[in-house]
Amino acid sequence: MKIVCSKGDLLNSVNIVLKAVPTRTTMPILECIVIEVKNESIKLIANDMELGIETLVKGTIEDSGIIAINAKVFSEIVRKLPDNDVSIETDANNMATIICEKSKFTISGRNADEFPFLPNVDKKDPVVLSQFNLKEVIRQTVFSISDNESNKIMTGELFEINNDKLRVISLDGHRVSIRKIMLNNQYEHIKVIVPGKTLIEVSKILSGEVADEVNIYFTDKHIIFEFDDTIVLSRLIEGEYYKIDQMLSSDYETKVNINKKELLNCIDRSTLLVKETDKKPIIINIDDKKMELKINSAIGSMDEEIDITKEGKDILIGFNPKFLIDALRVIDDEEVDIYLINPKAPCFIKDKEESYIYLILPVNFNAAV
Amino acid sequence: MKIVCSKGDLLNSVNIVLKAVPTRTTMPILECIVIEVKNESIKLIANDMELGIETLVKGTIEDSGIIAINAKVFSEIVRKLPDNDVSIETDANNMATIICEKSKFTISGRNADEFPFLPNVDKKDPVVLSQFNLKEVIRQTVFSISDNESNKIMTGELFEINNDKLRVISLDGHRVSIRKIMLNNQYEHIKVIVPGKTLIEVSKILSGEVADEVNIYFTDKHIIFEFDDTIVLSRLIEGEYYKIDQMLSSDYETKVNINKKELLNCIDRSTLLVKETDKKPIIINIDDKKMELKINSAIGSMDEEIDITKEGKDILIGFNPKFLIDALRVIDDEEVDIYLINPKAPCFIKDKEESYIYLILPVNFNAAV
Repeated sequence: MKIVCSKGDLLNSVNIVLKAVPTRTTMPILECIVIEVKNESIKLIANDMELGIETLVKGTIEDSGIIAINAKVFSEIVRKLPDNDVSIETDANNMATIICEKSKFTISGRNADEFPFLPNVDKKDPVVLSQFNLKEVIRQTVFSISDNESNKIMTGELFEINNDKLRVISLDGHRVSIRKIMLNNQYEHIKVIVPGKTLIEVSKILSGEVADEVNIYFTDKHIIFEFDDTIVLSRLIEGEYYKIDQMLSSDYETKVNINKKELLNCIDRSTLLVKETDKKPIIINIDDKKMELKINSAIGSMDEEIDITKEGKDILIGFNPKFLIDALRVIDDEEVDIYLINPKAPCFIKDKEESYIYLILPVNFNAAV
Repeated sequence: MKIVCSKGDLLNSVNIVLKAVPTRTTMPILECIVIEVKNESIKLIANDMELGIETLVKGTIEDSGIIAINAKVFSEIVRKLPDNDVSIETDANNMATIICEKSKFTISGRNADEFPFLPNVDKKDPVVLSQFNLKEVIRQTVFSISDNESNKIMTGELFEINNDKLRVISLDGHRVSIRKIMLNNQYEHIKVIVPGKTLIEVSKILSGEVADEVNIYFTDKHIIFEFDDTIVLSRLIEGEYYKIDQMLSSDYETKVNINKKELLNCIDRSTLLVKETDKKPIIINIDDKKMELKINSAIGSMDEEIDITKEGKDILIGFNPKFLIDALRVIDDEEVDIYLINPKAPCFIKDKEESYIYLILPVNFNAAV
């Protein structure tokens, strides 16, 4: 195998497939990036057995072939090479020689035969959306997946398509995040659970441009994201997702309209007084024209007031401040509506069109605080 | 005590004194910043017993007084407050109330009586230099102090003043870094060892502007840096510094002139192949018109050539690549001169005026490599 690529193109592609290289594994072959040169194309491949990525690199092919090279060593070498053409040549013993200007690296690769290549799946009828929308919807929901592997379903997100609507849902037992996106076409009903890790890695690779599209294919066991010169293939999480709709009530006793940034900054400040380990709630007291926020801890106390518009009853309710912060951070509106029922029932932060719904469970607190 | 300061001014001053708050200590009072309001001035003070910092904050004084507040909590609160006036008020029980807009924090402080205030030292005849020069000279030498506390002297830097010259020296047993600065006045002879930690913290606070000055005072046991509204006082390290001048020889067998950036990038690339733990040298082969650099490790090998201008003998010599990188990074010249004697003798990287001298010991290597 012998190829010549520009350092920039090569680095870019290496960085994409690196997302599927496991940080820890007992199988050395998984620590490798495969360079496969055939049929006039140069392809980089990595696969951690749950998530696999293939991407094409522009370049000149002088000789076809295939090799697996340690991803960490290879990526660091490429990163530090001068900005110029890079030639990669391999010999029969899987020694790879990387030359750029007067710099020459020789590293030993591995036989790619052992490598778990991505399965060939039948791709038809893609769901199409903009890279911008996909990247945003991931950012706006992925924070509320659970990282507790003992409940696998909570570590993923529900992707549900009904006609021309995509609904993405994540939950961790304390809160639910729901985002709805309108699609440009009608699709058959789809309901799958996508691993959160896959979505986090995909969103790092997506350009985030409104004009760039991504095609999503679904099979029984896999989801495939196809965009630019890249294919990301991931296993789905098996099982039945939680029945969300019965948690969503449109009844409320109190509705508050508040400036999002003021509320977010205030809650953010309050967390200074709380150490990770002690779960001090922020106490929110809503009366006619203002919301009073209080926190009390071993370190000290905070008390702040924010002007609001209110409908309905006064209420005194406590929350884990982190959950409010996470939701408010990903809402782009200047003002938000918060719907409350009673101090034991979840609150809802949502817009009128329900393009987003953030449900957060309250926390018990000592009313004497 | 009651004061009102702008959030920006207060945060700026807090960040300055934070440099003298120890990260670990068994004395809770040392974790505090003291706010001292008297004689029409608001002063913040921190002291880790080796390094102490005082700085003034602009503000309105409504009532004088003094309090010690936990530095971490106080600095985080100030950082997250809105950009507006901050009022700080204390009561007889050392409770501090911090109010900014509608936000109110209450935290309990400590009695400042236990605090180790900075000693009053007799300040006269300061050595004056620009903040730029001091900041630069620290950056250009401090990387080669030793972090091994068992040899205290090596953890500091020699500050030596002779007439109108300041010479700053650091060494760690493998290399010596020397920088010379011309002063605008004549001074009495001074020779002291300043703790490296002090210099690192001072250089973080210095503006780095050529137009800003810093006054340095020396006493038997202390060095004092006075600049802007800040005083930094540090203990000196006691003992006799190494006799450097007898290590500096102007004899050489080989002199190389080389592009600094090319050499630095090449050595930087070579370190990819070396793990922290194995001390693989970079082998440098100098002949008539080129320098060949080679490294060989379990990961792979690198080989690169750089054009040079050479006087004297050919030479084959090995170095710890990190030591070359550290020195080359802080040299601002486009080209550097390297002076070599033999494969067992130190090399010198220095300019003609000897405004900088970097001495680096070579490493033994298997010539068969």
